[in-house]
Amino acid sequence: MKCEPIGIIHTPFKQLEGMPIQPAGAVGVEGVVEVFEKFRAGLMDIEGFSHLTLIYEFHRSRGYKLEVVPFMDTQVRGLFATRAPKRPNPIGLSTVRLVRVEDGKLHVENVDMLDGTPLLDIKPYVPEFDSHAEIRTGWLEQARKTVDQRKSDTRFN
Amino acid sequence: MKCEPIGIIHTPFKQLEGMPIQPAGAVGVEGVVEVFEKFRAGLMDIEGFSHLTLIYEFHRSRGYKLEVVPFMDTQVRGLFATRAPKRPNPIGLSTVRLVRVEDGKLHVENVDMLDGTPLLDIKPYVPEFDSHAEIRTGWLEQARKTVDQRKSDTRFN
Repeated sequence: MKCEPIGIIHTPFKQLEGMPIQPAGAVGVEGVVEVFEKFRAGLMDIEGFSHLTLIYEFHRSRGYKLEVVPFMDTQVRGLFATRAPKRPNPIGLSTVRLVRVEDGKLHVENVDMLDGTPLLDIKPYVPEFDSHAEIRTGWLEQARKTVDQRKSDTRFN
Repeated sequence: MKCEPIGIIHTPFKQLEGMPIQPAGAVGVEGVVEVFEKFRAGLMDIEGFSHLTLIYEFHRSRGYKLEVVPFMDTQVRGLFATRAPKRPNPIGLSTVRLVRVEDGKLHVENVDMLDGTPLLDIKPYVPEFDSHAEIRTGWLEQARKTVDQRKSDTRFN
């Protein structure tokens, strides 16, 4: 399967080091999702949604390991039990807040990706589809509440 | 960007017609996520998570239109304000409940994809990363609560 970017995500983050590792650590950080002109007709009605899930390429990611020490822990974990960016298919997923739409540009908040990230898809966030109760989160159970204070470092460069 | 399947999702759904259109419409429907042997080391620690977000290819999807009448409505909507499967990059996203792990096979519930769907990635579901409050959902505001009763038809064949 071949994926082509449908746009570019502009953010304040020029390098991995010091970046927030999830949107929860990037509350209020503004970015612009620029959708290429040929796809803009697909943005109709999107302004009604407060949150959008962006699917994008971890474009600086090269290679992967199936066992990693994630940012949220000091122990080795299975890659698919983490959100680490080096993956067999380096696809990233972040739900951001939509502030306004202007000329095919989505002004958003809570961006946690690198500047210049290729956008692959946009899905409207709908609680009935995407939010779940009675959750267990394994090794992340304690650490997850501190995600807003965690920053990226160079380990996945 | 080229994506290679890391596994196959087995479900009871052999055709699009009559399928649930979201996991909320597939509560209790059992499926098996078979991760290919070379990627299985990445499943370590995954059994601690009650929910996983599966990223997969809408493999029967061909082409797309930027304006569609979605399953949840009778009006034309912008494609990126819908979850319709025919997209420029036909990437699907569903959060399922993990029941147990056995020999590289994830037994899951709430599957809403076709049998034989190519798996691209698995991410652990973490409320602090993936769940949001104070949500607006535009054209879906009324209809979204009935998603569990909606079924697919042939329109995206």
